Amino acid sequence: MSSFDALVLALRKLPGVGPKSSTRMAFHLLQHDREAAHQIAQALDAAMRDVRHCQRCNTFTEAEVCDTCLDPQRNAAQLCVVETPADQAAVERTGSYQGLYFVLMGRLSPLDGIGPRDIGLDRLFERAADGEVREVIVATNFTAEGEATAHVLAEGLKSRGLKVTRLARGVPVGSELEYVDLGTIAHALVDRR
Amino acid sequence: MSSFDALVLALRKLPGVGPKSSTRMAFHLLQHDREAAHQIAQALDAAMRDVRHCQRCNTFTEAEVCDTCLDPQRNAAQLCVVETPADQAAVERTGSYQGLYFVLMGRLSPLDGIGPRDIGLDRLFERAADGEVREVIVATNFTAEGEATAHVLAEGLKSRGLKVTRLARGVPVGSELEYVDLGTIAHALVDRR
Ligand SMILES: [Zn+2]
Ligand SMILES: [Zn+2]
Repeated sequence: MSSFDALVLALRKLPGVGPKSSTRMAFHLLQHDREAAHQIAQALDAAMRDVRHCQRCNTFTEAEVCDTCLDPQRNAAQLCVVETPADQAAVERTGSYQGLYFVLMGRLSPLDGIGPRDIGLDRLFERAADGEVREVIVATNFTAEGEATAHVLAEGLKSRGLKVTRLARGVPVGSELEYVDLGTIAHALVDRR
Repeated sequence: MSSFDALVLALRKLPGVGPKSSTRMAFHLLQHDREAAHQIAQALDAAMRDVRHCQRCNTFTEAEVCDTCLDPQRNAAQLCVVETPADQAAVERTGSYQGLYFVLMGRLSPLDGIGPRDIGLDRLFERAADGEVREVIVATNFTAEGEATAHVLAEGLKSRGLKVTRLARGVPVGSELEYVDLGTIAHALVDRR
């Protein structure tokens, strides 16, 4: 296989990229932006080498423990559980939350073979049982899978004697948190149940 | 900047990839397919290192001169001018053409600052004047820019005493050759004017 064909094939491994767009990408880089190609290659290798999961909250970080978890200003009595780092960023942008986080890096999805282990459920239960956490705010998405995940989380956390709340229904049902406007998220935080 | 942010930024250099999809790509690779990330990085570096332009037809190749140009079975009296390697592949798939090619690697586009030099017009004129070429078939796309390019090509080639034909109008106006069905292209080849 030629290096060109190999590149087209490799680019198809990117999510959302089919044969037409991978060909267009390879063509564009070779013809117009070889510098960008090297930058992307380096960024890929660097990220795969440097980025790991925070030992406390499971988000992506380059340290053992991420900056948020290490921040003494945060309220260690509150733990907000989100599906992804992008969801965490969305909550952060509201400026309405001072507690800590746990990032599932996914959601329960039996059809896709994603079970409790894949979203680090045991690690979350262990994290929430550190003696400091008083309330776990479940902020998984209001999709079918996010709701199912929230249900499983709530059961497990309540059985461990923890107070469990859920973002209020201000967040439109069926939507992904990442794409919701700040005001709605802020309001839902205040109205959590 | 973190390696994660650097990766998101680098992936945005891919055509058609905005901030949301680059974040999704970085997340997917880190979380689910680190092996793919390394494969893409290697494929990018290999392609940028290996792939150059054929000295005769200007298409992408890893040799000095590409396989098509070296093929003694091809009819050296015919030269088909296309915009991209994908367009060349579309013509090849028809099985209706036995001549050689010249690949412009673009089209004239004054608004985007793409002039005669960027599409190797001088090299094409030189190539077409090798004494063997009898007919130049202009197969640029039937878009406004493709037509304008065809016009400039035809003027230059005719002034050098070459016979210039254009694919027949069987190809739907406004469409990109790459996406046209084989039968239409084959018919347009026969009916070239
Ligand atoms: Zn952390
Ligand atoms: Zn060639």
